[in-house]
Amino acid sequence: MQTLGIALLGCGRMAHVYGPKINTHPGLRLSVVFNPNLASAERIAEQYGGEASSDLDHALSHPGADVVLVATPANTHLEYVIASAKAGKPTFCEKPLDQSLDRADQCVATLKQHPIPFMLAFNRRFDPDIAALQKTVRDGGLGQLSFLMSTSREPAPPPMSYVKSSGGYFVDATIHDIDLMCWIAGERPSEVFAAGSCLTDPEIGEAGDCDTTMTTLKMPSGCLVHINNSRRCAYGFDQRIEAFGEAGLLQTTNQRDENLVRWGADATEVHAPLKHFFLERYDASFSIALDEFYCAVTEGRDPSCTVQDGRDALAIALACDQSRKTGSAVKMEWS
Amino acid sequence: MQTLGIALLGCGRMAHVYGPKINTHPGLRLSVVFNPNLASAERIAEQYGGEASSDLDHALSHPGADVVLVATPANTHLEYVIASAKAGKPTFCEKPLDQSLDRADQCVATLKQHPIPFMLAFNRRFDPDIAALQKTVRDGGLGQLSFLMSTSREPAPPPMSYVKSSGGYFVDATIHDIDLMCWIAGERPSEVFAAGSCLTDPEIGEAGDCDTTMTTLKMPSGCLVHINNSRRCAYGFDQRIEAFGEAGLLQTTNQRDENLVRWGADATEVHAPLKHFFLERYDASFSIALDEFYCAVTEGRDPSCTVQDGRDALAIALACDQSRKTGSAVKMEWS
Amino acid sequence: MQTLGIALLGCGRMAHVYGPKINTHPGLRLSVVFNPNLASAERIAEQYGGEASSDLDHALSHPGADVVLVATPANTHLEYVIASAKAGKPTFCEKPLDQSLDRADQCVATLKQHPIPFMLAFNRRFDPDIAALQKTVRDGGLGQLSFLMSTSREPAPPPMSYVKSSGGYFVDATIHDIDLMCWIAGERPSEVFAAGSCLTDPEIGEAGDCDTTMTTLKMPSGCLVHINNSRRCAYGFDQRIEAFGEAGLLQTTNQRDENLVRWGADATEVHAPLKHFFLERYDASFSIALDEFYCAVTEGRDPSCTVQDGRDALAIALACDQSRKTGSAVKMEWS
Amino acid sequence: MQTLGIALLGCGRMAHVYGPKINTHPGLRLSVVFNPNLASAERIAEQYGGEASSDLDHALSHPGADVVLVATPANTHLEYVIASAKAGKPTFCEKPLDQSLDRADQCVATLKQHPIPFMLAFNRRFDPDIAALQKTVRDGGLGQLSFLMSTSREPAPPPMSYVKSSGGYFVDATIHDIDLMCWIAGERPSEVFAAGSCLTDPEIGEAGDCDTTMTTLKMPSGCLVHINNSRRCAYGFDQRIEAFGEAGLLQTTNQRDENLVRWGADATEVHAPLKHFFLERYDASFSIALDEFYCAVTEGRDPSCTVQDGRDALAIALACDQSRKTGSAVKMEWS
Repeated sequence: MQTLGIALLGCGRMAHVYGPKINTHPGLRLSVVFNPNLASAERIAEQYGGEASSDLDHALSHPGADVVLVATPANTHLEYVIASAKAGKPTFCEKPLDQSLDRADQCVATLKQHPIPFMLAFNRRFDPDIAALQKTVRDGGLGQLSFLMSTSREPAPPPMSYVKSSGGYFVDATIHDIDLMCWIAGERPSEVFAAGSCLTDPEIGEAGDCDTTMTTLKMPSGCLVHINNSRRCAYGFDQRIEAFGEAGLLQTTNQRDENLVRWGADATEVHAPLKHFFLERYDASFSIALDEFYCAVTEGRDPSCTVQDGRDALAIALACDQSRKTGSAVKMEWS
Repeated sequence: MQTLGIALLGCGRMAHVYGPKINTHPGLRLSVVFNPNLASAERIAEQYGGEASSDLDHALSHPGADVVLVATPANTHLEYVIASAKAGKPTFCEKPLDQSLDRADQCVATLKQHPIPFMLAFNRRFDPDIAALQKTVRDGGLGQLSFLMSTSREPAPPPMSYVKSSGGYFVDATIHDIDLMCWIAGERPSEVFAAGSCLTDPEIGEAGDCDTTMTTLKMPSGCLVHINNSRRCAYGFDQRIEAFGEAGLLQTTNQRDENLVRWGADATEVHAPLKHFFLERYDASFSIALDEFYCAVTEGRDPSCTVQDGRDALAIALACDQSRKTGSAVKMEWS
Repeated sequence: MQTLGIALLGCGRMAHVYGPKINTHPGLRLSVVFNPNLASAERIAEQYGGEASSDLDHALSHPGADVVLVATPANTHLEYVIASAKAGKPTFCEKPLDQSLDRADQCVATLKQHPIPFMLAFNRRFDPDIAALQKTVRDGGLGQLSFLMSTSREPAPPPMSYVKSSGGYFVDATIHDIDLMCWIAGERPSEVFAAGSCLTDPEIGEAGDCDTTMTTLKMPSGCLVHINNSRRCAYGFDQRIEAFGEAGLLQTTNQRDENLVRWGADATEVHAPLKHFFLERYDASFSIALDEFYCAVTEGRDPSCTVQDGRDALAIALACDQSRKTGSAVKMEWS
Repeated sequence: MQTLGIALLGCGRMAHVYGPKINTHPGLRLSVVFNPNLASAERIAEQYGGEASSDLDHALSHPGADVVLVATPANTHLEYVIASAKAGKPTFCEKPLDQSLDRADQCVATLKQHPIPFMLAFNRRFDPDIAALQKTVRDGGLGQLSFLMSTSREPAPPPMSYVKSSGGYFVDATIHDIDLMCWIAGERPSEVFAAGSCLTDPEIGEAGDCDTTMTTLKMPSGCLVHINNSRRCAYGFDQRIEAFGEAGLLQTTNQRDENLVRWGADATEVHAPLKHFFLERYDASFSIALDEFYCAVTEGRDPSCTVQDGRDALAIALACDQSRKTGSAVKMEWS
């Protein structure tokens, strides 16, 4: 089995997600950990392996760095992706690509000039239930597709500092649902309509953002897509997808760590909470995404989630936010 | 127990629904059956009881006719309601009120001049699961409401003759979901957006109608409503409602006559079909609606589903159809 | 459609169960109601129709009495069945046949001398879920059968007066499970073992009975049967059957009148209680059993649940009680 | 965090189960791997770490061997446990203790003379669902316990060579259910009754064993226990436990890796198979059992699953087999 050495850029939360997963993958190892702050890089390197560096060029040209994993703060993804592409390294980039469509377009252009195997980590595509749903749909198991529906609700709003730098709820969160819906449908919307409310914390509304949204995507085939998102969910991280077509319906269901059923005088119930949040619910999908990147690079093929996918999901999320703000549907054209 | 004699107007399918339910209700009996075609009236009277008549005045002034049940073709509901109101008889009217908003407004006005106990039979409000959901929401069991969602899919499209006289899919079918959503939320939308496709039969599209719709209602409170309707559903009559709020989620589920679970080498499955269509799925709700009317009249109070509710649901359904045709959201104002 | 007039013997609880079901069956009507106490017969006749009589011969020879329905107290079933057989009337008899095996054997013998269409009303065979399970098993859908399991738990113990005259828990209640298991398996046990505890009310134990039992039946084919019964069940009337064989598993599930699912911070739950008790849970089965009797009589065939079935279930129930008392397995031989 | 070095005895299938789990436990590491065949020990040591040895004394006295993990063939567990006890090492032993009650008694006696922290790895106790069920029962959440029921069915029979050396189906497999039932109930049976059939392969019956069993345990409290086991299960590894008491019912449910629900014209179904077999279904429980051992040793307390538990489960399993062979219930006495 071929071994790929990784240059990990970034030392925040996602470094702690990918670190252990790199170490349990039989074909991956951590070669170098880069952070502008050397102390941070050293802490990650000590915990998960590799050499620590605060010198980007050194990290990208490190002899053990066969591939690059970009897990830096979201607003810096692009600069590192472009540096990595210019260094000619196959690159795996945490989502989102960027919050600016112009910058995302520049990135697409740069990657055309410097073609490398590139994967944007929309990890939820690799969740086993969602992947099985998508495969059934794309293989024609539902016949003509009528509806796609995604329910994605978070336990509680993030801190206001996060909200303010997130690019807005659509760009921060709905983008996951948008990517999944387009990937499952196999097409991009010709028109979007979105409505948003601020129900959890007035400060979110004062910042021009919302915490409760419903989105409709009209697909060229006639398939209609519904997405609902909420930054508040009393019973945890609610993640459900429905695909409905000519031949029937597919549903993914919520997951728990314990499933004991309790029949009492007052109710029949399951006490145990849902998988807490995205790191728990989609734990497997991070590993499988990493393995997809490994396989694509070692097999010499393109990874299954492209820079164009990331750029398009951003364009749709921005159109949704525009629709929410104007109260009008927004038409989309694709070249 | 007080007995109310009924003048039944109309001898079509709904007469066969209400006939047996009148006969098993301990306080109701069929006194007179009216139809312009006497032979039809005689067949119904023979089967379910009462005197047959083709003379409307005779039927409305019949000494045994304490109340009137309007179950005539949908486009004639209004004229019979108005006649019954002028005769001063408490009146139970099958949905819809009418397909024309002008005529519905005239009916509201007439009933103001001739006040009678009047009930528009949005029977699904009386389904035990939906009623329990609505009661929990209105009693504050979910706290602040964020989302209402209604899935309503029919096994197969009706004949084209029905489609053409139905007033369009929103007025014919979505109106049920609209009424339920407004009743559960306790408010009417400030804006609607709807999208529609024609996926089952091109003739429906050629007639200017659609068979696959997604509707968004924005409520003044910030609650967002989603409705999806399809005239085709491979697995039967799919009827599910979700209410999501601050304190959690309520879901109604589909129903079957048989629930045997089969675990085999290839799948764990339930073979039995869903309750076939609205007469089977909502069978209990027709009886309970009739009983609500009986109780309201004998207790001297207004029935719980008013002419205004019928008029408002129609207005919203028409706005949805307009939104579908124009591609723009439609604002709604309520006096 | 042929009409059968019924002579109803007995005016207790079961008369109120069968009365309305006779009246809604299109081919059945109540002709005469017999009770030794004329006033009781008059009350039932007034409510459900027919002539009241306290003269058994008169009732059995009534010109409108095409068939006889025995719904008298359990310890008098036999005498009325024998009288009805001697009068040559097709007879439908509420379970159980009797509490004494000798007397049951005499009844079997009498019915051989006076052959009439006879049906012992083990109504649960006619429950739609159980009937579908049995049909699948008998049609070979599971291949070779390994296990049959029946869970049957009552909400609360009956009054001590009932317990004392019931013939014991096995003869009173387990007999239903025994009949179903033998009917599904298509064979009778070669050996039984039963264990019983008294956990709800010491008075039951002092009377020599039990309220908590586990029963094993060994079938000649090698199929093993488990039955568990409890006279106490906090969450209501728990009724579940499992059939497990070479090709998989079939399960019947509990039923409710309302199925709203509630997702809250503490649990995901269904509040609504199970169908209250046997009259509610098996409501449909009483109607279907009556219809089976109607069809058998009008089609000139034997009904599907015979006097021998009733006699055999009693023999097995008595053997179970003996096993419980002695602590030893009891072998059974069938001629 | 304290680190415990492990001497792993045995290099078969269970070494491959425990190897990776030792390496991902932050407080455990593999110090020495023993096997009489040095080449086998070297292969395991190479894969999971530690020094390889074919000298038992060397392994047990290895300076890095703080504790001993016995994962040798089942019929050699005892000799290694005794050697480890005499060496004074805390010992974790794969189930079963032994197939001979005499030898198990000798082991209990030896461990009294050489007291060490000892844990018999009935791993299923550590499954999260089963542990939550047991905790609820032992904490009184069900009030007085009426029934415990365990369903445990394997996909397919093992090879005949395994069957012949397994000690019989009760000692090989039912022993897991027996241990769980006694642990949940908090008591040992006063009487057992078991029935067995041979339905899958006549060779199993010719060897004096069975593949299809039903077991009843009568507990001193009056609680009744049912266990059903099958060496054939078309839909996979079926593992379900029910605890029923005064206050209600607890149920563990089967588990899958994928839970997509598919609604089609013919059925509503889940295609995905159950977790394949015990290594997959109880994967977490092996890790948690190992951690319990680690915690008990480092905290200076006894592990929660004792040599007496292993000896008692064996005694009950042997009594079940005797009951199956004689057809009689077997009384059990406990000193």
